[in-house]
Amino acid sequence: MNINGKPHRTIWIHPDNSEIIQIIDQRKLPFKLIIEDLISVDDIENAIVDMHVRGAGLIGATAGFGMYLAVCKSSEDSFKKELMVVGERLKNTRPTAVNLQYAVERQIEVINSCNTLAQCIRETRSKAQEIADEDAAMCKSIGEHGLGIIKEISDKKKGEIVNILTHCNAGWLAFVDYGSATSPIYLAHDSGIKVHVWVDETRPRNQGARLTAWELLMHGVSHTVIPDNTGGHLMQHGLVDIVITGADRVTKAGDAANKIGTYLKALAAKDNNIPFYVALPSSTFDWKISDGIKEIPIEQRDGNEVKYMDGLLDKVEQKFLIMPEKSSVANYGFDVTPARLITGFITERGICSASAESIHHFFFR
Amino acid sequence: MNINGKPHRTIWIHPDNSEIIQIIDQRKLPFKLIIEDLISVDDIENAIVDMHVRGAGLIGATAGFGMYLAVCKSSEDSFKKELMVVGERLKNTRPTAVNLQYAVERQIEVINSCNTLAQCIRETRSKAQEIADEDAAMCKSIGEHGLGIIKEISDKKKGEIVNILTHCNAGWLAFVDYGSATSPIYLAHDSGIKVHVWVDETRPRNQGARLTAWELLMHGVSHTVIPDNTGGHLMQHGLVDIVITGADRVTKAGDAANKIGTYLKALAAKDNNIPFYVALPSSTFDWKISDGIKEIPIEQRDGNEVKYMDGLLDKVEQKFLIMPEKSSVANYGFDVTPARLITGFITERGICSASAESIHHFFFR
Repeated sequence: MNINGKPHRTIWIHPDNSEIIQIIDQRKLPFKLIIEDLISVDDIENAIVDMHVRGAGLIGATAGFGMYLAVCKSSEDSFKKELMVVGERLKNTRPTAVNLQYAVERQIEVINSCNTLAQCIRETRSKAQEIADEDAAMCKSIGEHGLGIIKEISDKKKGEIVNILTHCNAGWLAFVDYGSATSPIYLAHDSGIKVHVWVDETRPRNQGARLTAWELLMHGVSHTVIPDNTGGHLMQHGLVDIVITGADRVTKAGDAANKIGTYLKALAAKDNNIPFYVALPSSTFDWKISDGIKEIPIEQRDGNEVKYMDGLLDKVEQKFLIMPEKSSVANYGFDVTPARLITGFITERGICSASAESIHHFFFR
Repeated sequence: MNINGKPHRTIWIHPDNSEIIQIIDQRKLPFKLIIEDLISVDDIENAIVDMHVRGAGLIGATAGFGMYLAVCKSSEDSFKKELMVVGERLKNTRPTAVNLQYAVERQIEVINSCNTLAQCIRETRSKAQEIADEDAAMCKSIGEHGLGIIKEISDKKKGEIVNILTHCNAGWLAFVDYGSATSPIYLAHDSGIKVHVWVDETRPRNQGARLTAWELLMHGVSHTVIPDNTGGHLMQHGLVDIVITGADRVTKAGDAANKIGTYLKALAAKDNNIPFYVALPSSTFDWKISDGIKEIPIEQRDGNEVKYMDGLLDKVEQKFLIMPEKSSVANYGFDVTPARLITGFITERGICSASAESIHHFFFR
């Protein structure tokens, strides 16, 4: 999407040197926009592990480009053997990231099919680009399906502003482009539909206030950052037309794990008859599980993310203590929104309502 | 309640000099405990306006002591006339604070009944103390009624820890002592019932993380600070036995306005069959209104409370920027929890369920 009027992705090949991969170092947003050059597998590994890049789609694309960079640095006589080792190393940076595993495997397949290093460089470059392009196309497709829902609301409101609430960052920064929850919003905005986004700040890490707000600001989409406490009040007063969030994992029955706090917004949407959609790539469905609350383990993260907060003072980003140092804290990363509170899923294949039957029918018949 | 093992109130007469009133300057908590001497009406006015003290009960008590300090500084020949002017001035510090108006009026009545300045000093000092004592006694009474509810849960759990969730600060810092929502908790703790409190941090001003956590820490009550997003997940997993909050205004039908975000916790409590109680002085009921969502106007506060956050860096409290400076923000102070989500009201007179009929019956029959 746009940064200061110029289209960007989250990862790309350096325009003047095809052996350099460029990314946005997302840790510095929104206070600094730093474009980082990655020239080695070490750089790639570091970018994934230290979260310069984040989000399943983007991590996968980064690993794809990582394999390509590794090929560039290989020696003609032993490149296949060397690259198997690199592949394993990259897979271990985030062992639970499915897109990452898959991207590495696709590159290994390409490498095994090549006869010369020169051919391998060409073909892994092209495959890395393909993996990234596929992610962007998938997100665009999610957007096109979601656009219909927003357009319908806009028509019903006779062209008045459509107010959309979102939680956390399921934006283009978490993918290669467009995002999942944000994709329908960008497409609506670009097609001239009047939209306004309520951005939950999303404590404790504030990905809404830091990343979603920055994305929308850079693309020129009207938005307002609100404390996570605010959404219910807005819904009671008719100030929200639709909620769209992302998801980290969805069961075959339609229970959706997403950033902590999503469940509270789904309850408020239900209580006020507001449609609540989850936008996601189909690959987010976990066909092995059904009851999300019982079966999805919820990660507990470092309590210091609650106790301290990152902010800018005199143009320097610092960590500040925001509560009594001796009080205990808890930091659950996700919660599960039961299917009964979800209106539907917006996927790259179309829209599907949130019940075991609908989901099964949509994907398997 | 206790600070480092020693009982405190939020306001008291200096033990060595009865013409000095002492308060805790709450703006500095939890990072610094500053006991402030108030020696003039200017000091009192400043403490109320600049929120060194906060909460209806405490503001009322402060105004009562303010009138007494004014009497101490008056001249024998014109004290009644002078004090009428002071009374008006104090009433205007927070024109919507009912307890404050009432405290000033009670002191004016005392002043009008006195013949000499010396008598007036004695009697307004005693009245100020009486107003403060009444507030503390009322909160203690709320606690005694709420204690029964906690005890019942504790018995049902065979003495296992009772987990209580609270939002914002309806603690002793908002009253003279005990607090409203916290009073049953302190009484349960002091009587040996095992309790643990989930403290919502309560963005944007973080009164939970700053004040409630500090109170509980100082009194030795087990507690855990959580982001406001967390409560729903805890309730889904059986980690909350009861929710107790305060209220700023309750309609005769039982709709309760309280700190923004309370409604979301009430929805989650309902969804998980967890009792949701509002603890409050009876004076919080507004008998003139019925539909809280339609009739209670919700204050919008300065957006910088959302955009900037107060925290400690190198032992100095600072304001730091936590989101893109150019993004818009909204800062609604309160929301309204409909009566249908509230299990009951814990008042100084007893417990009353949350419907127009029960409330009417409880207060007027």
